[in-house]
Amino acid sequence: MSHDLRDGEIALPFDPAETADGPRVAFIGRIRSPWQPGAAPRNIRKAREAGCDGARVELAPAYAPGLTGLAVGQPIVLLYWMDRGRRDLILQRPGHADGPRGTFALRSPVRPNPVALATVRITALDAARGIVGIDAIDCYDSTPLIDLKPWIPTIDSPPQS
Amino acid sequence: MSHDLRDGEIALPFDPAETADGPRVAFIGRIRSPWQPGAAPRNIRKAREAGCDGARVELAPAYAPGLTGLAVGQPIVLLYWMDRGRRDLILQRPGHADGPRGTFALRSPVRPNPVALATVRITALDAARGIVGIDAIDCYDSTPLIDLKPWIPTIDSPPQS
Repeated sequence: MSHDLRDGEIALPFDPAETADGPRVAFIGRIRSPWQPGAAPRNIRKAREAGCDGARVELAPAYAPGLTGLAVGQPIVLLYWMDRGRRDLILQRPGHADGPRGTFALRSPVRPNPVALATVRITALDAARGIVGIDAIDCYDSTPLIDLKPWIPTIDSPPQS
Repeated sequence: MSHDLRDGEIALPFDPAETADGPRVAFIGRIRSPWQPGAAPRNIRKAREAGCDGARVELAPAYAPGLTGLAVGQPIVLLYWMDRGRRDLILQRPGHADGPRGTFALRSPVRPNPVALATVRITALDAARGIVGIDAIDCYDSTPLIDLKPWIPTIDSPPQS
């Protein structure tokens, strides 16, 4: 993986991909999408506009019973591991930004723990086979899934300021 | 850790805490809260009602520059690792539920990858010291943080059905 820096970017003095000593994540399944590396929409809003026929979650068989209680039409949050990016940039300069910004002020997949979030709607459900159809997704085909939760408005909306 | 099962609960045939072979998470800091094990609110709505004086994020020093560009008043999403629960329940029966439900239909901290989400508002910011005051949080004091992102309405709200 390239460790080049663009102008104004700053890397951590260590690489979490090498030094992280927390627990290991379990890949519980994969996200299937129409997108291949180098040709994915910039975010889920763009993905929704582009159309995402066939977008779905495929759980590994042992995890399928965990879908019990979910229903078509329900909004859920997917957590997935963006496994293609570096983990050591702390100040970065995405193509669309006018200058370097902190990693935690960006939704970039380049971050110490590359966990992305997508809030989607269930369009189809085959709980026995561990398959969940979703209205859209912005990640590459076969991106590892680490969690799936119900989206709950009283929990997942910001408080009034 | 107890591996007892309540009536109707089902465990995976393996324990992700032991078998997970994905990448390791990096603990980038800690969440400071008024809550101690055994005495935490059930969710962030309840935490907000109870009041959360002093709730904040404390990043490890190397990660502090990652806050550049965030501002007081902004909504953010915290991702934290609920490190006190078992990871092998796939059908579970929380105290408030009338029967067993799939882990992915619940917000329970008991899940294969115990990553919790909280959408909060920044109430204070000391980027140089890596400290972010937040309006509320529902986890125990010193829970490990793994990520912090801006909350963006076009990304983090469910699509219209």
